[in-house]
Amino acid sequence: MKKNILIVPGDGIGQEVTEVGKKVLIKIAEKFGHEFTYDEALMGHVAIEATGNPLPDETLEKMRASDAILFGAVGHPKYDNDPTAKVRPEQGLLKMRKELGLYANLRPIKLFDELLGASSIKPEILKGSDILFFRELTGDIYFGEKGRKNDGDTAYDIAEYSRYEVERIARKAFEAARTRGKKLCSVDKANVLETSRLWREVVQALAPEYPDITVEHQFVDSAAMMLIKDPRRFDVVVTANLFGDILTDEASQIAGSMGMLASASVGDSTGVYEPIHGSGHDITGMGVANPMASVLSAALLLDISFGLKAESDAIISAIDQVLKAGFRTRDIADSTTAPEFILGTDAIGEEILKRI
Amino acid sequence: MKKNILIVPGDGIGQEVTEVGKKVLIKIAEKFGHEFTYDEALMGHVAIEATGNPLPDETLEKMRASDAILFGAVGHPKYDNDPTAKVRPEQGLLKMRKELGLYANLRPIKLFDELLGASSIKPEILKGSDILFFRELTGDIYFGEKGRKNDGDTAYDIAEYSRYEVERIARKAFEAARTRGKKLCSVDKANVLETSRLWREVVQALAPEYPDITVEHQFVDSAAMMLIKDPRRFDVVVTANLFGDILTDEASQIAGSMGMLASASVGDSTGVYEPIHGSGHDITGMGVANPMASVLSAALLLDISFGLKAESDAIISAIDQVLKAGFRTRDIADSTTAPEFILGTDAIGEEILKRI
Ligand SMILES: CC(C)[C@H](C(=O)O)[C@@H](O)C(=O)O
Ligand SMILES: CC(C)[C@H](C(=O)O)[C@@H](O)C(=O)O
Repeated sequence: MKKNILIVPGDGIGQEVTEVGKKVLIKIAEKFGHEFTYDEALMGHVAIEATGNPLPDETLEKMRASDAILFGAVGHPKYDNDPTAKVRPEQGLLKMRKELGLYANLRPIKLFDELLGASSIKPEILKGSDILFFRELTGDIYFGEKGRKNDGDTAYDIAEYSRYEVERIARKAFEAARTRGKKLCSVDKANVLETSRLWREVVQALAPEYPDITVEHQFVDSAAMMLIKDPRRFDVVVTANLFGDILTDEASQIAGSMGMLASASVGDSTGVYEPIHGSGHDITGMGVANPMASVLSAALLLDISFGLKAESDAIISAIDQVLKAGFRTRDIADSTTAPEFILGTDAIGEEILKRI
Repeated sequence: MKKNILIVPGDGIGQEVTEVGKKVLIKIAEKFGHEFTYDEALMGHVAIEATGNPLPDETLEKMRASDAILFGAVGHPKYDNDPTAKVRPEQGLLKMRKELGLYANLRPIKLFDELLGASSIKPEILKGSDILFFRELTGDIYFGEKGRKNDGDTAYDIAEYSRYEVERIARKAFEAARTRGKKLCSVDKANVLETSRLWREVVQALAPEYPDITVEHQFVDSAAMMLIKDPRRFDVVVTANLFGDILTDEASQIAGSMGMLASASVGDSTGVYEPIHGSGHDITGMGVANPMASVLSAALLLDISFGLKAESDAIISAIDQVLKAGFRTRDIADSTTAPEFILGTDAIGEEILKRI
């Protein structure tokens, strides 16, 4: 298979972990006889520094021309406590999602057996949990009009959803449920929000087309509680942009660590694959970042954008073997890990590469 | 002290648990020599059935005339899967909050030592956690304009905050932090929302007035994750209406069970005290509902609305003793609880009354 992959490392540890993700793609191509070509582009704080723009036109053009994108993270502490900063790394992220029409954000929350102890949640509650989130990514309160009135003393944000926006993400979720546990939980706040009432209407209207899927509706507050109390009751979850942002970060605790979670953002053309963790400026340059989320992002890329399931499974199995061999990065080590088994970014990357 | 308390049991188990809460108030008055008078009023589904209105004018008048309100819960399954129902129990709840100006919702998340094992979170992560949430309750996307356009195919909800709305709740939170661990975490989504940018601006502007308080700002997605990963890092948390709804339900898992959590909604006049659990229609009429959240609501009422700290502490200590004696309701029992120690609503209520 011939494909061209764009590498967008972004900021902070994004650069360190994406390098490992890319090496894994190169190894897979070699081993399975594919021809992947790579290009690279700037985004986030590094792009602001270089061009004044968090998502330069050149990057956007390369993105549009790519078959898939392996992305790192964007962000820099200098913007975090300055809500008034006019140019921010996150603007690049949001613009990319909108411009590329990446309306579906998939976040698989799957626990590697070896990491059962790493979570703050009890192992007996977690064991066997396996959730696939579909977060809508180009609508809701993220992209509606927002601003100030009354001399800046009143702020507003408009949440908005159209029927077709809900329908296309809901269909993706229904279809995914078919290939899994056949359960779909739609999360909304229909007892308060009009956008949620539309959301629920649309999901209810689609349900008869998927008679093999059991559909459940939960309010977001209750879902936030149930995810912790009983994660195994969830299979596929579909929800709006803002609720998805909150619930998927929360659910990362089910997998023990953010450092193990990948996500796919897809729509009608190219797809973006990235760790759900951020740019980790507190550990940037130390060489200790866990690259497994980037490696798992590469696995998702092969599976979802290229349909290369065996290649994707080879990566997941390599990670599984590395964990079974006892190797850990700092973030997933515990008191039972011997110091010589705690590896840095590159060293654990080598262990993964060896096992592909 | 002479006070008049309005009892609003509402729907489902609201009626069963509020009866126990009221008995506890009667016992306290007797024991500490206060003169509490009681009136009762309808709200929620029962009010819709009786009058067509989830918050009848008569109820609202009685509320305004009261010194404090002990409230149960509202809701009925018949509305839950009908997003189009025109009259709903929750409308009564939202209208009450707005009409009475109950802009501050306080939710203390405190774990009784005896229940350390009841949570899905590991005891070593939980031990010693003690969080006080301040959820803004009369603004945000709950009360902005909402509706449909494009022939009903597009839905919208407007989130709105004004400077003074943020300031008054933030001040309450700062002041509470003074009497506790002196840490305030303000939760927002300032990297995306204009309302959050205003929120952060206001909290930042107030901080210099409270130099003894350490202020931290967290994004809501990250806060949802940290609450589970490391609950002990939080002391007082202040946040907007919608984020507060989600995070406090999630945080209920820190306390082991929703059945143990009380909340206070206060503003400039009367206060409303209620369990954070709902109307529990699946267990209504079975006599098994845990009344402790209602009893703890009565304790909050005495403390916050009447300033009766000793009386409030007497209630909390009675509950503590009941738990230490080994008594449990079904929801907080575990495999080590002997069947004869699992009590129903009234029986555990009697055990509490005995110990006041
Ligand atoms: C950085 C931020 C704008 C972004 C979001 O809220 O979508 C992030 O939290 C995410 O989940 O990708
Ligand atoms: C019933 C619902 C409208 C309400 C809310 O969202 O405020 C409830 O969840 C609560 O937290 O009191």
